[in-house]
Order: sequence, then structure tokens, then C-alpha cells
Amino acid sequence: MASQHPYPVARVGIVGGGQLARMMAKSAKRLGCTVTVLDPTPGSPAAQVAENHIVANYFEADALRKLVEQSDVTTYDLENIDSAVLASLAAEGHRILPDPKLLAIIQDKLLQKQAFEKHGIPTAPFISMPEPNQEAFAAFGYPLVQKARRGGYDGRGVAVLKSEKDWSTHLPVSGLVERYIEHEKELAVLVARSPSGEIKIYPAVEMVFLPGANVLDMLIAPARISEKQTKDAQQVAARAVTVLEGVGVFGVELFLTHSGEIIVNEISPRTHNSGHYTIEACVTDQFEQHLRAVLSLPLGDTTQLIPAALLNLLGEPGHNGTPLVEGLDEALAIPGVSVHLYGKATTSPYRKMGHVTVVDADLSRAQEKATRVKSLLRIKATVPENVPTR
Amino acid sequence: MASQHPYPVARVGIVGGGQLARMMAKSAKRLGCTVTVLDPTPGSPAAQVAENHIVANYFEADALRKLVEQSDVTTYDLENIDSAVLASLAAEGHRILPDPKLLAIIQDKLLQKQAFEKHGIPTAPFISMPEPNQEAFAAFGYPLVQKARRGGYDGRGVAVLKSEKDWSTHLPVSGLVERYIEHEKELAVLVARSPSGEIKIYPAVEMVFLPGANVLDMLIAPARISEKQTKDAQQVAARAVTVLEGVGVFGVELFLTHSGEIIVNEISPRTHNSGHYTIEACVTDQFEQHLRAVLSLPLGDTTQLIPAALLNLLGEPGHNGTPLVEGLDEALAIPGVSVHLYGKATTSPYRKMGHVTVVDADLSRAQEKATRVKSLLRIKATVPENVPTR
Repeated sequence: MASQHPYPVARVGIVGGGQLARMMAKSAKRLGCTVTVLDPTPGSPAAQVAENHIVANYFEADALRKLVEQSDVTTYDLENIDSAVLASLAAEGHRILPDPKLLAIIQDKLLQKQAFEKHGIPTAPFISMPEPNQEAFAAFGYPLVQKARRGGYDGRGVAVLKSEKDWSTHLPVSGLVERYIEHEKELAVLVARSPSGEIKIYPAVEMVFLPGANVLDMLIAPARISEKQTKDAQQVAARAVTVLEGVGVFGVELFLTHSGEIIVNEISPRTHNSGHYTIEACVTDQFEQHLRAVLSLPLGDTTQLIPAALLNLLGEPGHNGTPLVEGLDEALAIPGVSVHLYGKATTSPYRKMGHVTVVDADLSRAQEKATRVKSLLRIKATVPENVPTR
Repeated sequence: MASQHPYPVARVGIVGGGQLARMMAKSAKRLGCTVTVLDPTPGSPAAQVAENHIVANYFEADALRKLVEQSDVTTYDLENIDSAVLASLAAEGHRILPDPKLLAIIQDKLLQKQAFEKHGIPTAPFISMPEPNQEAFAAFGYPLVQKARRGGYDGRGVAVLKSEKDWSTHLPVSGLVERYIEHEKELAVLVARSPSGEIKIYPAVEMVFLPGANVLDMLIAPARISEKQTKDAQQVAARAVTVLEGVGVFGVELFLTHSGEIIVNEISPRTHNSGHYTIEACVTDQFEQHLRAVLSLPLGDTTQLIPAALLNLLGEPGHNGTPLVEGLDEALAIPGVSVHLYGKATTSPYRKMGHVTVVDADLSRAQEKATRVKSLLRIKATVPENVPTR
């Protein structure tokens, strides 16, 4: 008996209307689904391509109820949402994936680390640090990384303290401290898992960070590591998602240590910035893959067809307001360049306004081209800040 | 001095809100554009992903004026629209591409053939046939193809008369008759051309038609022809678009004759069904390419990364009404399969409801998989027609 789906194939609800939801909504349309987005910003990036938009905060219980009630499956594009309300809605029988109980663990970095520890997932040694305490930091030993339990992303909520001299830079929040891992590279592996336990693993990719800042500068896919290291990274990532019984696409961030060990840094219960290159470079992209997983459809092929480099387009420092896209023509003139703009009505310093994927049969050439794009393409504002009015 | 674009990069208007406009709108969003669609059907496929929808017929002059006035560039996703009104709006200075004067030529199959003849583009010998006349048909000689001047698509408006015995099957309309070309294969080549004259050519693809019907059964990319034949096909197609001074993406349909000659069958002033595989298989897909062309942006790389086969999903005969998608799970379980559904609220026999692209490193395996998908995936209706009610 062949499978049968009504039309729309599913009504998909997404908590969060940012760029991840925007790209997911496009994939949802392709698969014959309709989309409702819940986001506090009218005209959010995803609302521009979704059928319905509930304008509400991620913590409004009534709005979340409305969303799940009008959706066959509800998912999310960010972690900082109300997992307790979602868990109680799931307990009523609403299909919400990944499981809000798993979200509750992942969105709390201490619980996340404890889960890794419990399941034997390799991760940096850590201790709970409910109140930052100079003696306790010293007793744990430097160099260390302090992490807030909640609300961190893109490097926020994380402090690296190389020695006791850095004490003044600690975060005055409840959290944990973990051993600072000297590493060769930071890697990310996307893992998709469906309710039946089917698993698909994307290639390991390499995250290159801006010196000093904990903000992704460029992503190199596939990572320039050995075949064995790639396999190890994929295995560790898949095991982490499996033991957590995750359903959907998960971005697993990893360290490759100097001794060649693979250690899990953290996990995101959603599609991931490091996976945007899959749109151009892989047979099935991460957004369609996530939908296939949460809709219990068979997972797609993760084969990468061509090397890729990925660059985030951040709002230019000193520029606030209506965006002005500088250098678009010059960037698009480079073969293999795809520019993705997210439809955000205003720019501000370092805001994620878009990304660029560069594909090239030669990975180092892809990287060179991405570096050129970085110098060419800038998101400024039509009226720069601090311009003296005369 | 770097190029500068406001945000949105452009307000794109599209006459026609079908699947081509739907896929174009998604590309437009990615490039930072907003989209207004003009289509008579509320909730048309493209309107589901566009900012604005003008619900109007393609021949309503006031609505067309409204569309071009609120768009920085206007384009179209079908030929059967009011080229005269668009030409007068273009004469006022509105940017409408491809040029409505070229559209007026292409939408009239007699004028199109005469343009080919004038510019020395190889095409089947033909004569004008304003009123079908049995003696004139006989004088021209059989086998022949009769074509209506206007309104034909997907094989409508075309009659193949093998001999005088077929006279009764002729079309009672003004048109032309042309020599029936015995051919090895039917090919299509997508050509993109920008206002500056920059040209990018996609691979030659092979169209396989259902025996008897003039409806595309499957598309094979790249075409299984020699390198020389590929080059010839690309050159002839590019020359056709160049001499017509086309701007945008054009689908050029060609015959490869038994003697190895390349002959132009007809040209579409728009993205083309035969180019849907470019979304998965080429660096820059036909929809982004079309937008780059009409927006005077540099054209993208047309390299094909992996072989592909493409299948249209047509409404199942005997089924009218709300769609029921049968076999989706089974189709998606085949590696390399991407299903595109167009968001049409009702199905009817042979209506284009979606398409499937299959990529595989081995072209014949892609074709086999597409054949399997064809037998698995069907668009039926929730209540089949002619079901006796008891």
C-alpha cells in the first residue's frame, strides 16, 4: 500500500522567523507544505515566505498554543524559547520536534554537558559554577572557559580566561567552567535523525573564527583533515544525536585537539549556520533534511558534490538603519558565488544580514574567492551613523 | 567605485503566478529582492511566496500598469500575455524584460519563424497558412507540422499530419505549416543574456516525449550526444538569442536530425521546464540566472555538477479536486530524489502539479530512478471523479 499524504502535505509551524526559518520555509513549500511562523517582528525574514505569521514573543504561551494547534508539526529555528510550554503542549499530543524535553536540556549548557558526561560523549572536563567564585575558578585551574547556562549564542555567554589575571573578564552569571581545549581546528558536523532512528550524516566542515572574536569568519567544507579524523568526527556527532534521541537536524560543534582527539563542544537542536553551504553543494540541503526528519519522511542523500566556502554577511560597524548593499555586482561576477540576503529591513553592526556560498572544484580556490568576496561585499546603511549634520 | 544597491535590491514584478514565477520568486528573495505577482488566481503558486499579489488577468491594461509602476523591473513567466500593453509601458520608460517587442515576435509562431529565417537561424522550412487549405497543404507536401500562430503550449496548437489522410486532424486556425523534421532527438538549451551582451549557456539537455502525445515525459541532462553536437546545439541556441537581442533566460528547443544537423524548433522568452534540473545540478540555477540578467547583474556559472533526470508530476487522469499525494515516502527514499510541489490547490488530469529531479553520478541510473519515481509518485484527488455515489 503506497503512502498517502493530503495536500498540503503538512502544515508546518516554526517558532522563530529568522533566516533559518526563512530557508526552511522555502524547502517546506517545495515539499508541498504550508508554513506558519511565530516571531515578534512583523515582516520577519521567514514571514516574507510563509503563509501565516503569528506576531508574538517566543515565550507567549497562548501564541505558542495557537501555533501548535494550527500545525501538523511544530519546530523551531532558535533555542531561546519556552521549552516548558512546548513540553506541556507536546504532552497534550501535539507533534513538536525536536522534543521540547531535549530542547530544555540543550538550551541549558550545564544540563547539556551533564548529558554528554552521562552518555560517555567526549567533551571538555567541567564543573558546575552556580556563582562565579575566584577561588573556585583557581581551584579548577586555568586556562578555562566559563559559560552561562542560558541565552548564549554567537560567542555571547562565553568567556575564555587564560589565567587568573583574566578574572575581571568573567561573566557574573550562573553557569559552568570547563577546561580550555587547545585545538587544531573547530569542526561542525550536521546530523539528521528521524523518529524511526534513521541517521544521515553530512561531511565534517571546518569553522574558521576571527582572531580574538568568537564569531565565525568562514566555513570550509569539507574540513581539511584526514579521512580518519572525518570519520571520527562524524561518528562522535552521530552518537551524540543518537544518545539524546534527537529528531531533526542537529549541528554538532567539535574540537579536533592537537593529539587528534575529537571532543564535542556543543550541540544545536536545529539547522546550523555551518550547514548553509548544503543548499548549493549537497544533494539534499539541511533545511529539506530537517523537514523530512520531523515529518517522518525518508532522509535524503548528504553527498557533497563540490567543495564550498561560506561567509557570513554581517552588518558593517558604524552602520545602522536601512541597508545599502555595496559590491554586489563585483561579488556576483566571481564564478561560483551565491549571495543570500535575509530580508532584514534594518542593519546594525555585526548583525547577520546574509551569507555567501562559494563553490569551486578546488577548495583552496573557493576559500580565496570567499576572501575576495569578503573584501568586496559589505552591508552598510544608507545613512551612516555619526555623520555630522551641518 | 564599488556598485551600490538599495534594499530591497530591486522590486521585481512578474506577469503570471505559476510554478516558474514561484521558483523565480524564491531566487529573488535570496538575492534581496521583493516580488509582486500578477495572476488571475488568488493564492496562485507564486503568490504563496511573493510579497504582493495583483489579482488580475494577463490582459488587463490597468493592472499591468499598476504592476510595472510598483516594480523596478518587470518580467513574465508565460508568453500568452498582452505584449502590446507591455510594449507601450516599456516605451514610457518602464523596465520590462525580455523586451515586449521581442515577446510579440516570439508569441506569434509565424513571426518567430520569419525572424529565424531573416537572421539565418537554421529552422524547418515553412510557409504562412492564414487559412488552412487542403490544396495548399498538399502543395507544401506531407509529412508536415501545422502550428497555430498564437496560444499554443505543451503541444497544444500543434498538429502533425503525416499524409493527406490526416487532413481531418488539422487545426481550423491561422498559422503556418512547416516541414516535419525526422529527428534523432529533441534537445533544449537554456541561454542567458544580459543587457550588456554577456552570454552564459547551459548544457544541452534531451527531451524525451511520451509516444503519441507531445508532452514531455522525461528530461535527461546532459543530452546523450557527441561533444560536437553539444557545441553545435549551444552555438545555434546562443546565436538565436543573440540575433533576437534577448535579455533574460531563454529556452531554445532544437532538433538533432538523423544527419547530425541542429535545427531550431522554437524559443521561449522565459525560464523553461527543461531547466528545472539546474536548481539541484548547476552552480547557478535558471531562475537566479534570469534575475541576474534582467537586473543587469553579472551572470552566474552554468556548470553542471552532476547528471540529472527530470520528470513532470502531472495530475492523474480521472482525478479532479483536492490533491492527494501518493507514493511520496517511497519516492523520497530513493537517493538523489528532490520533489517539487507547486502549491496548486486543485488537481485535474495532466495538470502540472510539480516535478521531480533525480541526480546521480551515473546518468543512466538517474534515468532509471526517475522511471521508478514515475511509477511510484502520483497526484490523485481525495475523491476520484466518477465514483458512483450510493
